[in-house]
Amino acid sequence: MTLTVGLDADDTLWHNETFFADVQQRFAALVGHYIDDDAATLMAKLDVRERANLAHFGYGVKSFTLSMIETALELTDDRVSGRDIATIIDMGRAMMTHPVLLLDGVQETIDALATHYRLVLITKGELFHQEAKVAASGLADRFSAVEVVSEKDVATYAGVLQRNNISRDSFVMFGNSVRSDVLPVIEMGARAAHIPFELSWGHEDVDADGFPVLASIRDVPEFLVALR
Amino acid sequence: MTLTVGLDADDTLWHNETFFADVQQRFAALVGHYIDDDAATLMAKLDVRERANLAHFGYGVKSFTLSMIETALELTDDRVSGRDIATIIDMGRAMMTHPVLLLDGVQETIDALATHYRLVLITKGELFHQEAKVAASGLADRFSAVEVVSEKDVATYAGVLQRNNISRDSFVMFGNSVRSDVLPVIEMGARAAHIPFELSWGHEDVDADGFPVLASIRDVPEFLVALR
Repeated sequence: MTLTVGLDADDTLWHNETFFADVQQRFAALVGHYIDDDAATLMAKLDVRERANLAHFGYGVKSFTLSMIETALELTDDRVSGRDIATIIDMGRAMMTHPVLLLDGVQETIDALATHYRLVLITKGELFHQEAKVAASGLADRFSAVEVVSEKDVATYAGVLQRNNISRDSFVMFGNSVRSDVLPVIEMGARAAHIPFELSWGHEDVDADGFPVLASIRDVPEFLVALR
Repeated sequence: MTLTVGLDADDTLWHNETFFADVQQRFAALVGHYIDDDAATLMAKLDVRERANLAHFGYGVKSFTLSMIETALELTDDRVSGRDIATIIDMGRAMMTHPVLLLDGVQETIDALATHYRLVLITKGELFHQEAKVAASGLADRFSAVEVVSEKDVATYAGVLQRNNISRDSFVMFGNSVRSDVLPVIEMGARAAHIPFELSWGHEDVDADGFPVLASIRDVPEFLVALR
């Protein structure tokens, strides 16, 4: 049986949370000119707004940018200047167009995996931005399918497998989010392993164990050989 | 040969431009408190910003909302109040969550088509919002596939057909945009017909002819019978 390897993208193949963390710091510095709260408090308030807005605006940079503007207005009682609002939008625009930085070991590992397995990229977020990042990554032709989804739950993975004629017992998923890349795949009856990234968004953190954890994407080929 | 019927969603199955036009009017009224330009001029300036932002932020309500904020800042030399910026974001949030209003004749036509043909929904825009609208429309189970795409060009349609094992000579597309729903499908070698909607965004308007035009979605079944 030929295995199909599912791979997450943001913070599994390339940097993402790094850019968010940087912009959150700059947001805190900007709002810190108006009120006395420290950076951690300001970022925590942004996080609350961001999670509340998931239900209205979904994941991704544009939703995050709107959340930054709303939080800046709320925290300053609407005193934040028009110039600073424009700066926030420019921060969002820069996030949409920043270069794609592959994580360590990704290029050679994906090249090696592509010679032995069918690879499927499964990524959550905004269609427009995710497609742009896939194109810019230089990895697009290694994947037999690229699936951009709005949420990663059991139904989503079942749909991806069905659309691509993949059986559950031949599918193995790898990603940095236990919540999105590991637990729903195992619940569906396929296999998954966690590849932690140094940064994670609290929304994606869950307290769970009982699944394989790899130190690096470089360990994926050996992990797959051991499964056979 | 069983035909596969492709259908656009926004302004083909349900109202969309109606909501944009309403919000554009309210945007012009809001900015009109600060400067003397008439509503048509203000909306034209918003349209310029919106088109420029397509390359950075893509299609959809969130991109449009960011464009409204930027245009308000530009036109008022950053004098627009924080309260008015918050109002603009609330206008965007309301667009994301408004009820889905089916166009006249859609429900019964889709029900009738679904008994004879394989139906595929092909819609351009934000994944999160488009999926929400498909779910809220009550039409989801009539479609064998729902394809949310970031742009509708020849390559996109070729990918949709390939993913769904549809041959070009068995595919017929219907939609309100000549630019997005008709011309690329014909260029690809399949068939398409235009169903104009009373409103259209200038970005989607093109000067072209030589394709069938239907007065209403109610005319689709008869059009398909005549093709056989």
